[in-house]
Order: sequence, then structure tokens, then C-alpha cells
Amino acid sequence: MAKADIARRVYNHAWKLDPIVRSLLDTDFYKLLMLQMIWKLYPDVDVTFTLINRTTSVRIADEIDEAELRAQLDHVRTLGISKKELIWLAGNSFYGRTQIFEPEFLAWLSAIRLPAYELSKRDGQYELTFRGRWMETTLWEIPALAIINELRSRAALKSLGYFTLDVIYARAKAKMWEKVERLKQLPGLRISDFGTRRRHSFLWQRWCVEALKEGIGEAFTGTSNVLLAMDSDLEAVGTNAHELPMVAAALAKTDAELANAPYKVLQDWNTLYNGNLLIVLPDAFGTSAFLRDAPPWVADWTGFRPDSAPPIEGGERIIAWWEKMGRDPRQKLLIFSDGLDVDAIIDTYRHFEGRVRMSFGWGTNLTNDFIGCAPHDIAGLKPISIVCKITEANGRPAVKLSDNPLKATGEPAEVERYLKFFGSEDRVEHAVKV
Amino acid sequence: MAKADIARRVYNHAWKLDPIVRSLLDTDFYKLLMLQMIWKLYPDVDVTFTLINRTTSVRIADEIDEAELRAQLDHVRTLGISKKELIWLAGNSFYGRTQIFEPEFLAWLSAIRLPAYELSKRDGQYELTFRGRWMETTLWEIPALAIINELRSRAALKSLGYFTLDVIYARAKAKMWEKVERLKQLPGLRISDFGTRRRHSFLWQRWCVEALKEGIGEAFTGTSNVLLAMDSDLEAVGTNAHELPMVAAALAKTDAELANAPYKVLQDWNTLYNGNLLIVLPDAFGTSAFLRDAPPWVADWTGFRPDSAPPIEGGERIIAWWEKMGRDPRQKLLIFSDGLDVDAIIDTYRHFEGRVRMSFGWGTNLTNDFIGCAPHDIAGLKPISIVCKITEANGRPAVKLSDNPLKATGEPAEVERYLKFFGSEDRVEHAVKV
Repeated sequence: MAKADIARRVYNHAWKLDPIVRSLLDTDFYKLLMLQMIWKLYPDVDVTFTLINRTTSVRIADEIDEAELRAQLDHVRTLGISKKELIWLAGNSFYGRTQIFEPEFLAWLSAIRLPAYELSKRDGQYELTFRGRWMETTLWEIPALAIINELRSRAALKSLGYFTLDVIYARAKAKMWEKVERLKQLPGLRISDFGTRRRHSFLWQRWCVEALKEGIGEAFTGTSNVLLAMDSDLEAVGTNAHELPMVAAALAKTDAELANAPYKVLQDWNTLYNGNLLIVLPDAFGTSAFLRDAPPWVADWTGFRPDSAPPIEGGERIIAWWEKMGRDPRQKLLIFSDGLDVDAIIDTYRHFEGRVRMSFGWGTNLTNDFIGCAPHDIAGLKPISIVCKITEANGRPAVKLSDNPLKATGEPAEVERYLKFFGSEDRVEHAVKV
Repeated sequence: MAKADIARRVYNHAWKLDPIVRSLLDTDFYKLLMLQMIWKLYPDVDVTFTLINRTTSVRIADEIDEAELRAQLDHVRTLGISKKELIWLAGNSFYGRTQIFEPEFLAWLSAIRLPAYELSKRDGQYELTFRGRWMETTLWEIPALAIINELRSRAALKSLGYFTLDVIYARAKAKMWEKVERLKQLPGLRISDFGTRRRHSFLWQRWCVEALKEGIGEAFTGTSNVLLAMDSDLEAVGTNAHELPMVAAALAKTDAELANAPYKVLQDWNTLYNGNLLIVLPDAFGTSAFLRDAPPWVADWTGFRPDSAPPIEGGERIIAWWEKMGRDPRQKLLIFSDGLDVDAIIDTYRHFEGRVRMSFGWGTNLTNDFIGCAPHDIAGLKPISIVCKITEANGRPAVKLSDNPLKATGEPAEVERYLKFFGSEDRVEHAVKV
């Protein structure tokens, strides 16, 4: 007979908080790779990260309680990197390379605490801002997003009985497993979890990651979540993000510096990393502009991550460029990561099969797909398109253009200046769902 | 952080047995109603119950271990009715009537233990026999069947990892909930759980019962499982079974007694019960013969449970008979209970809507439907058609003809004699799945 565990029950009664983020490693791996570069090359740069909810129809501030949000954010500020975590970062190999993190960087990291945040409400949205040293504020992006998203899930499920919840998760598991069985059909598939920031919850992401590990085996190449990679003995995966060219561009003092910003950060990156970490993210100011002006050595890099054009269109553009540069695309790698669902993964895989190496970074539709799982339509279970972007660097406005104008960020006047400067070739609007 | 409960783990290490049947009330309610009648009117009758696997292609003795089967059966023999259970039987109301069980009966029941069993193997099947007083052996039927079925499930799932099991149950829950949502569409539906004997497992039956309680609310009129009814504050439902006319017929010394046997047990029943418990089970020796020879008072009974003809055909036959007898079918009740799945329930409901009161007893397809839930086809998860029937009464062979010749039981020569005696009008073979 199952007996209640009295001590646990009493302990649970005393809970003040069920923390969403319980470790600073519960973040994307590329944050740590970028952090080492920022710490090394840009230690004095100040930036502002700002939460941006692109799904403006969802009034987040009406859905989740401010006190709860503050409690979760405050909890993250109490966290430091633990000794076990430091040892793992120092001793583990990443992308086949040991000691990817310098001892001095890890020593600095061991003492880090996340800086203060600013939070207010406006028009049903939270204005959440992180100001300070780039090398400190950058670690806020992922936990802030994960907290907002999980608080939305919790609020959406709050009124439901235990039994209904049981059915919702059963359906979500069954749904996830259908996807696993479809992906199994693709020989040589390489896919990894990129779903930390927009996950339904930490525990659900963990279940999805375990499902992929058990279900597709070798085809599952790892998770971007450092904590899950450590706990589940998976590869931690990821390379770099838009914040690097965005800051470099914002700091540019001349047109020549601005034009060179997207390539300068690649050179910076190359001083620290190599091999499979040499992945170009080309769309910060438009992929066409990037390819048009790219110096020849960019074609030596391992691959590209087209992140805002439709995968087939974006992939073809890069393959054509490699061919123009005299490179064999079959030796090159494309990493697809923009709002993928199973259909898009399968279509893209079939389209490029045999023509290029491919890898898929599967995000929101992996870790936050509850469509059709609840007994009735629960709006709060539908993921929203929410990001946390750099809006200023050393007091100058930061901009992202993207290949999809709906994913652009920055002050309108500054966006206009960048568009004139880089051109707006091939930029096409596509609905941003997640 | 979830901590392991050391005491529980150590306790679990010492498990010898995870008992399938843990209470004598983990049985069908009609067993207790019939038991009171047997105890009162037939206390000296000896019978033999025999396990019959109609799905002969499944070699049960190869699937489940004899030692495990014996351990489970032995465990049932250690069980008695607990004080709490007795108080509930005495104090609860059933079908709106209090004190349905006489104090003397409950006093006798409080001391009952199940008699010995005989078990051997032949041709890949278990020969499992219960001999002795009818009022003791009758309680073996349901636990014996539930044990065989759950041991099959356990054997089928034994080699699977935790994660695969999690997905299987998630899918089964999602599948069950689809059924609940379809049933919700039927206004005025009345359905109850009849799935104890062929359940996948006790815990799974409990989940399914809770799912119906939460999902269809008032439409869920109860469970035949006495223990679940008690624990979940549901109505315990059921009336009577074939064993009553089978024993009465076997004991008949003259043709007149044999002809009267199906009606005599109804008269016996009527001395103890009334109202919604006055349900005729007409098919023991063929429904056509039963209706042809039925005395007029049978038309006064509340309803019929056609149990082996296809529901629409069987229901129409009984409605036609009521009309012939000058009764209004809209005042009468039909209980459908033969191998129902959701499609059959919906079709039958739509067919008879407004013409007769209906109730559905949902069995195997409620509590043991794992088709399509496992990652590959697992034969042991497919339910089989297994019954535990009276084969002798006071040394004389017992027979059931049924409306479906494939559900007939008894020695062939004796079946032949009954067929000649009662006629074989309208008997049609239908595949027996469960």
C-alpha cells in the first residue's frame, strides 16, 4: 500500500517557492562560449538586455503575477556555479576538445552572481531590463525567458484538477512520441534540443530530452542546455548568437567599422574556438548583405546557421554561395534552428539529403507543444514569441535586422539607418510563431 | 529537489509479492448479490468452476510463470472481508435501497476464506479448477480472471525500460481520454465499468474509473467493482449472471424442471431483490427459447441484459417481445454489456435513443485497451477471451448455450441435449474477441 511520506508532506507545506531555474548552468551552452569571448575581449562593455514580447496580443502581465515573477528572478540572483559544475566545465570535452574554457575564465565564473533587474508593467506587458557589464547581463537572457514561459504555463494550469493534468501530460507525451517515431524514419538525421528558453517547464524539457535520447539514439546529438547535458551525459551543443554582431555594430565608430562588424566578431571567435564551433550566423543584418560583402576566409568556416529565412530557401542561398566560392557543400554543415516543427525538419532533410551535412536545432515545438492536449483550449499553453535582446551597447542603440522584418529589433530610426547601410535585399516577412 | 525515500526503497527490496488482488471486495458486485441468494437458497450445492481460455492460440502457460500464478492465488486465500468493508456493505445503499444484505449473511461473510484450487498445465494452457460449495467457490471467478490477466500484462511489459513504459501508459491515457470525449457527446448516456475480470491491471482499472468519473460525470453510473465503488464513492452496479440458470438447469431432475429452470432463478431472485435489480439475463439457453416460453410476469421486470447477441439485434428482439406483451419499452431498461467498444456504444445509443431506457456495461475495451500504445506490437498486451465457468453442479454437467455458439460451454453431448431441448432458433456465430 502506498503510504504518504509525512516528512515530505510537511516539508512541502513550508515551500515558499518552487524555483524554475535552480542552476546557472540551466542555460544555453553558447552563452558560456560567448561569455568567455566577452570576458576576454569585451570586459568593459556595458549593455542593456530588454525583454520583447513579439506576441503583443498576449498580455503577459495579466497572466502572471508580479510578485511570483520577482520571487523567481530574485532566486536566480542567489545562484552561483557550484563546485561540481565547475569541475565538469573544466574536465568535460566539448565538440571533441578538452579544456575549451580557460582556467582564468572558470575562476572568474566561479564567483559570478547575476546583476539586478528592473521590472515594471506597461499596457499589460512586463518591461524587464538588465543593465550592466555585458559579461554579467548576458547570463540573464535564458533564465529570464525560461521563467516567464514557465510562469505562463503554471498560471494556465493552476485551476485544473490532478486528473486533468495527468491527461494533459499523457497526451503531450503521446504527441511527443509520435514525433520521435516520425524522426526515426530519417537515416543519418542529426538533431539537438534548442528548447530551453521557450520550454513549457524545466521538468517537461527534461522529459523531452530523455525521450529523444531513448527514442532516436545516435541521431540525437545533444542539448543546448548545459545542466541537462551534464546530468544526462549528453553533448552540450551551440555556437554563437546575434548579440555578438549586434554589439560590434553598435560600437562601430565609422562606416568601415560598421561594415566590418559582422566579420570582426567571427575573427574574435576564431581566436578562441575552431572546428564545429566555427558556425556562421549570417542574418543579423541580412544574409544577402552578409554574403555579398563576406571576405573569402568565411568560406573556410565549417558551416552556417540560417536562422530567420525559411530553411530550404535559406539553405539554398548558402549552398549557392559556397559553390560560387569554389567549396563543396557536401563538406559543409548547415544548422537549421528557426521555429522548426517535425514537418519542416523532414521536408528540409529530404530536400538537402546528400547535398550538404545538416543538423537541426529543435526548440519551442520540441519543449512547448501542448496544442490539442488540454480538454479545452487554454490560451496560456500556447507558446508566444518572446525574446530578450540587447538594445544598447555602451549607450549606443543596438539593432538586429534579420532576414525576416518581423524579427527585427531596435529603435525604428536606427533600424532605418542599418537598412540603408546594409541594404534590404531578399528580406521577406514570414509570420513569427515562436 | 526530490530525495529518495530510503525506508521505502529498503522496504521495496524486501517485497516478495506485489499482490494483484488485495481485497475480497475487488470483485464484481453481482457476485455478492448472487452469493446472498446462493447462501440463502442453495447452501448445500457443490459446484466446479473451471477456467476456459477461448483464445486457444494464446498459450497462457508459456506466458506466465506457474510459481507466480500460485503465489497470487495463494495470496487471495489469505484475504478475508475487513471490518471496514463489512460496515460499508451493511451501511451503504445500493440501487437506492439500504440493508440490501441481511445481517446473518454479512456475519457469515465475515468469516469466509476462499477454498483450495487445483492447478496443472496442459498443451500450453493452465487447467485451473475450483471445487466445493457453490457459496464459496463462486467468489473465485473474478479474482482468478483478474490475476491471469494482470500476470499476462506484467509478463508482456517485463523487459521494457522505465521510459518506454511511461510512453505506453501516456498513450493509453490519451487513447482512453479520446473515448471519454466521444462519449461526452451523448446526452443522457448511462454507462458503467464492467471491466474488473479482464483488466490490464488493478491500478489501470482504477485510473480508467477515475477518468470516467471526472470526464463524463453524471453519465458514469458506477462500477461493478465493489472495492473501487467503496474507495471512490461510486455506485456499485450489477445484477446476476449465467451461473444461476446454469446451476438450476444442471440440478433439474425432470424435463419440466429443466424447462422451468431459467424462470425459477428469476423467482428466487425476486424473493431477495426488486427495482433496478430485476434485470433478466435471457441468453443462458438462447434468448429466443427464453422469450418463447417466458411466463407473463417476466414482462413486469425492469429490464433485460442481452449479453451475447449483437446489441442492436438483441435489443430489437426484446423490444418486440415487450410490445407483444403489451408493455411500453420506453418504461423498460436494456443493459448492453457484450464486448462493447466506443463505436458499438455510440451506434447502439443512437439506434435506440428515445425508444427504450438504456445502460451500458463497459468491460474489456475500457480497462484493457493498449492496442497501438506500445512502440512495437506486444502480443501479451492484447486481451484474450477468458472465462471461469461452472462446469458441474452436484456432480451433474452444467451447460451454457448462449445466443452465440462460440460462447457456449459444457460437455459436447450435454450441449447437444440442451440444444434439442431448448431449440437453436436465432443462434448465430459472432467472433468472440473479449
